[in-house]
Amino acid sequence: MAAGPQPTDPDALVDTALAGDRRSLARILTAVENRTPIAEAALRRLYPMAGKAHLVGITGPPGSGKSTLVSALIGAARAAGRRVAVIAVDPSSPITGGALLGDRVRMQAYTSDRDVFIRSMAARGHAGGLASTSTAAAAVLDAVGFDLILIETVGTGQSEVEVAAAADTTVVLEAPEMGDEVQAIKAGLLEVADIVVVNKGDRPGAQRTASQLRAMLVAVGRVGVGSSGRARPAPDGEAVRPRPKEPEVLVTTALNGDGVPELLASLDRDRSRGRGAEDTPARLARAEAQVWAILADRLRADLHEPANHAATEATIREVAAHRLDPFAAADRLLARRGGRRAAG
Amino acid sequence: MAAGPQPTDPDALVDTALAGDRRSLARILTAVENRTPIAEAALRRLYPMAGKAHLVGITGPPGSGKSTLVSALIGAARAAGRRVAVIAVDPSSPITGGALLGDRVRMQAYTSDRDVFIRSMAARGHAGGLASTSTAAAAVLDAVGFDLILIETVGTGQSEVEVAAAADTTVVLEAPEMGDEVQAIKAGLLEVADIVVVNKGDRPGAQRTASQLRAMLVAVGRVGVGSSGRARPAPDGEAVRPRPKEPEVLVTTALNGDGVPELLASLDRDRSRGRGAEDTPARLARAEAQVWAILADRLRADLHEPANHAATEATIREVAAHRLDPFAAADRLLARRGGRRAAG
Repeated sequence: MAAGPQPTDPDALVDTALAGDRRSLARILTAVENRTPIAEAALRRLYPMAGKAHLVGITGPPGSGKSTLVSALIGAARAAGRRVAVIAVDPSSPITGGALLGDRVRMQAYTSDRDVFIRSMAARGHAGGLASTSTAAAAVLDAVGFDLILIETVGTGQSEVEVAAAADTTVVLEAPEMGDEVQAIKAGLLEVADIVVVNKGDRPGAQRTASQLRAMLVAVGRVGVGSSGRARPAPDGEAVRPRPKEPEVLVTTALNGDGVPELLASLDRDRSRGRGAEDTPARLARAEAQVWAILADRLRADLHEPANHAATEATIREVAAHRLDPFAAADRLLARRGGRRAAG
Repeated sequence: MAAGPQPTDPDALVDTALAGDRRSLARILTAVENRTPIAEAALRRLYPMAGKAHLVGITGPPGSGKSTLVSALIGAARAAGRRVAVIAVDPSSPITGGALLGDRVRMQAYTSDRDVFIRSMAARGHAGGLASTSTAAAAVLDAVGFDLILIETVGTGQSEVEVAAAADTTVVLEAPEMGDEVQAIKAGLLEVADIVVVNKGDRPGAQRTASQLRAMLVAVGRVGVGSSGRARPAPDGEAVRPRPKEPEVLVTTALNGDGVPELLASLDRDRSRGRGAEDTPARLARAEAQVWAILADRLRADLHEPANHAATEATIREVAAHRLDPFAAADRLLARRGGRRAAG
């Protein structure tokens, strides 16, 4: 507790962030990451101002060159006059989160550019929280005027894929000639891709990998859910987002910039398909994930408020001892809530 | 819908599973995986019979030899007269789940052994669902008499780490001389380890890797939360499980069995620390995760029941269009529930 600076008035933070103050923006993002009351107050004001930015998720296995490509994309987007924000989600270390992000120093080149904002976020491990936290952070950056928001995830686990899939456009990176196990992982990643990028295009085998990927995408297409396109996991894990088309497969060499302007153009093309629509499947899924995360937080808080905490803990202990099954426990906790509400 | 066989009476399934029928057991596990009503009925009966098995989570980066080690552990445990079940959780493919598990064929050696049961589970992507689903599956296997349950996860994302960390004993595998990026991932994994295994011990550098890991564990120890030990993520991502001790670091060569009996002994030692206790931190965390998953399912079902579905959908659309912030949306949905309840 009270490890950071004293909480500041959320309205003042929002005002200064909207006026361009980066420290206030950073503080709001920290509040979002930690789910503090400041986050709720700030988001209630900022959320209605958001909805204009293009959210791009970027994921791929370690070694595919994600942060180099993100760096190159920032350069290309800046050259096109765009304001760019990056959310680098690092869920690999639930406790000391962020240790992996040493390579973020590569992005130091942009620290003096007011139109670039780079933020690392560690995942705090809330159920379903990764996607909803990064979505809320994106809404803040959107509201203060960044129009291209890159959400980069480290690793290829389910949570990471969900984060990337929650964006408007999901980019999956691959490097040429990866080992067998990584090849197998591709199948899961490809299902959520709107655009597939073979990076390190100067290496031998890049074009061959791109061809293989195009063939795999046709194969993946055959296992789609429903007839309207393939399913993709929504942030809440229930809804599916039909994909209207095969993803494009591009080859880039992030290190020298080859193919990066083409990737930016491909992002714009992908976005234009949903332009003007307020209810694209990705937007609906993000909205539901955010509402759901808040509902879950409130239910949890309710179960642990002073009047309920002891009963909740006692019920959990009975389940841990296998004297009560978890369904009966859930019924009991819900009945207590209902009873209190009716009585109060 | 109705793709599989017609649902069978859950009581009959439980009776035959308890009598040793493997197909009934498999059907119950499928129901648990898909969260059908059969799962609830079966778990309500089976859960009180569980609580005796030792749950061991096994995780580690691709290439560390997890499935070979699991195979070797089965052999060692069988030689000691134990009944062994394996839950291989593969969350890498949210939709076509299970594609990665081709190497499961290595375990075919045990298909004729009635005291070994191997089950692959794809994650369906429910929020927080991976850990609660594998925990529920473990309770089923525990109830029907398996006394050592290995929960193997593919990959090293947050969800995978949570699954492994939900076990009584968490084993983290490493291979000697891995690349820099994988080394960095270790920090997050080591935080949840009760036992660290350097597999492929016949390779040069295995002992050196073990020494490096022991040094890293001391370093990781310094960033612990609180004074009672290090924190570990609980399945619900909120509670923490203090670790009473430094993890042991063992070297194995799963391919020829070297070090595997020592690993089994180490598992037993780790378990004996919590023996007899019904409220170890791992058990409490698992109980809470299961109850929480059920509460979340019920809240979600309530919001989408016929009387509420249209209003819920309309609210989500307003959030997607940024005309309503997600907090106000959550409040509105909760008020509707309260109103209905008071009225009904």
